[in-house]
Amino acid sequence: MFVIKIGGGAAIGEAAFEQFAGDLAELNLPVVLVHGGNAEFSALSSKLGMPPRMITNDKGRVSRYTDRETIDLMLMTYAGKVNKTLVAKLQQAGVNAVGLSGIDGRIATGRRKPVMRGTEDGKPKVLRDDHAGTIEQVDITLINLLLSGGYLPVLTPPALALEEGRPINVDGDKLALELAIAIGAEGLLFFSDTPGLLRDRDDETSLIREIDATDPEKALTVAKGRMVVKVEAALGAIERGVGRVVFSDARAEHPVKRALAGEGTVIKNG
Amino acid sequence: MFVIKIGGGAAIGEAAFEQFAGDLAELNLPVVLVHGGNAEFSALSSKLGMPPRMITNDKGRVSRYTDRETIDLMLMTYAGKVNKTLVAKLQQAGVNAVGLSGIDGRIATGRRKPVMRGTEDGKPKVLRDDHAGTIEQVDITLINLLLSGGYLPVLTPPALALEEGRPINVDGDKLALELAIAIGAEGLLFFSDTPGLLRDRDDETSLIREIDATDPEKALTVAKGRMVVKVEAALGAIERGVGRVVFSDARAEHPVKRALAGEGTVIKNG
Repeated sequence: MFVIKIGGGAAIGEAAFEQFAGDLAELNLPVVLVHGGNAEFSALSSKLGMPPRMITNDKGRVSRYTDRETIDLMLMTYAGKVNKTLVAKLQQAGVNAVGLSGIDGRIATGRRKPVMRGTEDGKPKVLRDDHAGTIEQVDITLINLLLSGGYLPVLTPPALALEEGRPINVDGDKLALELAIAIGAEGLLFFSDTPGLLRDRDDETSLIREIDATDPEKALTVAKGRMVVKVEAALGAIERGVGRVVFSDARAEHPVKRALAGEGTVIKNG
Repeated sequence: MFVIKIGGGAAIGEAAFEQFAGDLAELNLPVVLVHGGNAEFSALSSKLGMPPRMITNDKGRVSRYTDRETIDLMLMTYAGKVNKTLVAKLQQAGVNAVGLSGIDGRIATGRRKPVMRGTEDGKPKVLRDDHAGTIEQVDITLINLLLSGGYLPVLTPPALALEEGRPINVDGDKLALELAIAIGAEGLLFFSDTPGLLRDRDDETSLIREIDATDPEKALTVAKGRMVVKVEAALGAIERGVGRVVFSDARAEHPVKRALAGEGTVIKNG
């Protein structure tokens, strides 16, 4: 079983979807595809005159304030346009795909934190009615039912705040990670518009080919900047039973075949 | 097995969703819910400065021209915002719902008619790249799998033009009807913001309580205007094995319980 995460960046559009669809049709592996939709989300926000409000918390972490209108735009782009466009491309390639959000079948549930404190443009702010949250539980019953029926589940944020009956904005990478752990995946493959983890983020030839997860301290010395979070997450997933984590290039031809053959950054034990 | 269609009109928002969710949780029947999203679709179109282009064909039938941008808005509103908001409300009520479009699992496939001919504002027009079409096949394999697992499927347009890998705009009532026939439904319940079929459309007390489907000619004499199409479709569904068709009020408390008790217009044999 493989969990494959496709980023929602601007570089990853319908042409890339067709590459993924072609590979998945040929490989015929048990796979759950997880995707984002950030480029479409930002495009729709800006067309509607709703620029993102970025809030920095006391730990210096920057998050987007997700009010009610913003979570609706996330439903529209992630669960609507991107999810169904991807499913249609998979169907065309002969893969019987089923699109889902974390809300469907309670796949990903959590709690939202309605009050957001921090600074916006340097000014202290307390914003209410935030619809972001964290995944507390992943339920793979529906995923397993679909896989047993020969379907390929295509999953996207948001998740569900069950008691409120409201969607919550959760990170797509985190959703893929929690799903891979819950399902005990043989591999978790992250695709984005870079060849993998880079020693120098401005130099695509500086690819880190392998990271040994048996020595986490050493593993973390190779990572810097935003990469630290990704490596930490990968190490955590391997510790919790995922076979290997691969960061690979979404822009390549046959992206899935390449990643399975070890192209990109492979993190595993030994 | 019941197929329940909720209209996408302006009157049917989250408050009505909660009424449906409450009834479905209490009744615990095998149900497939089908919904539209026209009010949200129109609202988003107008916010984005994309007013509908209405084309009248040579038979006088008016349809919306669905170019590529328009079908994307349909994915956003029908399959994104409305579908997931409804699923979240059902989940909150304790119903394990799964949201789907006709694209997922190839539930509804058809062909699009890319060239649209007719008149727009009285002027003859030939519009290309239309994304509307007709449902040619309904595949209930995925629906049955979900029902067998105890899930309540929540289905919405669009459908899928399989060979092209593109979504196609199809009518929500038609989708519900074809599904009810394919599934051999005991009942097909249509909910909208009216008490049922009315003798006088401006008088809500002029409700037609029953139509006997055994005499189609007589049945059609009670219908007029836009109602004719609805009655014809209902008669066709009963002829093809659906137990009964009910047109009932979406705005009522306990809308599903009321419709099952015979409130509204009931069309059946004898």
